[in-house]
Amino acid sequence: MSRIVNLGLVQMSCSEDVESNFDKAVGYIREASEKGAQIVCLQELFKSRYFCQVVDKRLLVLSEPVNEDSPTVQLLAELAAELEIVIVASLFEKRAKSLFHNTAVVIDADGYYLGKYRKMHIPDDPLYYEKFYFAPGDLGYKTFHTRYADIGVLICWDQWFPEATRLTAMLGAEIILIPTAIGFTPEDISTGGTEYQHAWQTVQQGHAVANACYLAAVNRVGFEENAEGKDGINFWGHSFVSDPYGSVLAQAADDREEVLLCPIDLAFIDQVRDGYCFPFRDRRTDSYGDLTELYSGD
Amino acid sequence: MSRIVNLGLVQMSCSEDVESNFDKAVGYIREASEKGAQIVCLQELFKSRYFCQVVDKRLLVLSEPVNEDSPTVQLLAELAAELEIVIVASLFEKRAKSLFHNTAVVIDADGYYLGKYRKMHIPDDPLYYEKFYFAPGDLGYKTFHTRYADIGVLICWDQWFPEATRLTAMLGAEIILIPTAIGFTPEDISTGGTEYQHAWQTVQQGHAVANACYLAAVNRVGFEENAEGKDGINFWGHSFVSDPYGSVLAQAADDREEVLLCPIDLAFIDQVRDGYCFPFRDRRTDSYGDLTELYSGD
Repeated sequence: MSRIVNLGLVQMSCSEDVESNFDKAVGYIREASEKGAQIVCLQELFKSRYFCQVVDKRLLVLSEPVNEDSPTVQLLAELAAELEIVIVASLFEKRAKSLFHNTAVVIDADGYYLGKYRKMHIPDDPLYYEKFYFAPGDLGYKTFHTRYADIGVLICWDQWFPEATRLTAMLGAEIILIPTAIGFTPEDISTGGTEYQHAWQTVQQGHAVANACYLAAVNRVGFEENAEGKDGINFWGHSFVSDPYGSVLAQAADDREEVLLCPIDLAFIDQVRDGYCFPFRDRRTDSYGDLTELYSGD
Repeated sequence: MSRIVNLGLVQMSCSEDVESNFDKAVGYIREASEKGAQIVCLQELFKSRYFCQVVDKRLLVLSEPVNEDSPTVQLLAELAAELEIVIVASLFEKRAKSLFHNTAVVIDADGYYLGKYRKMHIPDDPLYYEKFYFAPGDLGYKTFHTRYADIGVLICWDQWFPEATRLTAMLGAEIILIPTAIGFTPEDISTGGTEYQHAWQTVQQGHAVANACYLAAVNRVGFEENAEGKDGINFWGHSFVSDPYGSVLAQAADDREEVLLCPIDLAFIDQVRDGYCFPFRDRRTDSYGDLTELYSGD
């Protein structure tokens, strides 16, 4: 017996105007809902440009409190209740004075705030200076029981770490949703950018197989010059949904905004898992202790 | 500066005659060496048919001691020394009375026995009744420092578990070699076998990306009726090598024997890892403790 759920992924470009970005996202959420989406996921930090391209304290003003009473969450909760959809939204959280997180909230289809996930793995690379802005998440991994499915949420850099997807799947996630901001830097383009994009998709397809669940990555799109007016990142879109066999069911374009709809059958998870007694039964938990070490040897 | 190493994967079919299987493997190892292979990996349990299709105590006679003095290891060591190649060979190990393992040995290019890895994850599924034959490995994960590269070894079912590849990579493996015996059962063919093969390859490409190393899976090929004379497995070959970006560099056919040669550049690992400060720096080891649980919650 099928259990079909319609995913809607909102892949968009962002201007410097936070309000117009928010309005654009709301418009796309409505469009996704009109097309039948029941769970809608926005890209990472959808309200602004990807400010982490530079280290600049002035950009901290983009942060906001993130809880059930905070203004952005309230607006999204009203929208979720109106449309009867689950919304996953990534926000720049101001938790306390000079304490910030890269956070995603999950709102259920009745507008109820289910909670938040704080990005655990924080990158720090040229044009991705996130360690300056974000304290590493301290809430651990999360799976949220929503009206339509049990969904895990990770954020961008997390998507490269199999530990993160495994721990999320162990919490019962049927779908792992991953708001993302990734693209080609000038360096990527000079040293094989295409392979990097392929790696990005492949590792996530691999997580879907290893955990026999669905996985959806939602990326922004478009070129964003950095705030110092040089270089910049060409965000590659390419938002996609993988099934538990690692097959890509739906994939957005690399170069334009898109509301990507994808029906998935949650019953297929049981079929795959029972099909080869996978992925949990045979785990050798007695041998995994060293995973809490950074590296083995010296 | 490049560090090119030539891999040779021996994908073959097996008859019921152990001696002729061994001779065939030796012939293919010589062929691989003639073509330039420096590290040659054989498929899982290359000396026999895949006997685990049935539960039958009589098949325990196929087992043998596996150590530096055991006859098969000695023969392979002489061959490795003669050809100056590293050999990875999977054997049915008799460790003690009624204690057996699914084991792979690594022999260096001077014939020196570097040690063995015992399969950690043991499947048990219709036509793959391995839990009857093999005690789970108790040596942990391994990386062997050989003349040509630092190689990790895993065996078949291990290849689905990201914990295994991660722990092997944390030991310094530049290449993870995975002798395998996998194919389509009659049930697979009736319920979507192609997707299963795709999942098998995808999850391993994902491991290569997640750990920024090379990975090679070496599978047997051909139909083997099971010993009870019914059903059987159609082993799908498809041995392949993935690079650290998850790109398949070489891939054998699904339906015939093949000595697959593949040059790889070990310097590319450094390039990829330094390119995005990956895969170890940002691991959140403080949050991975629950990986030693079988599942979270009830």
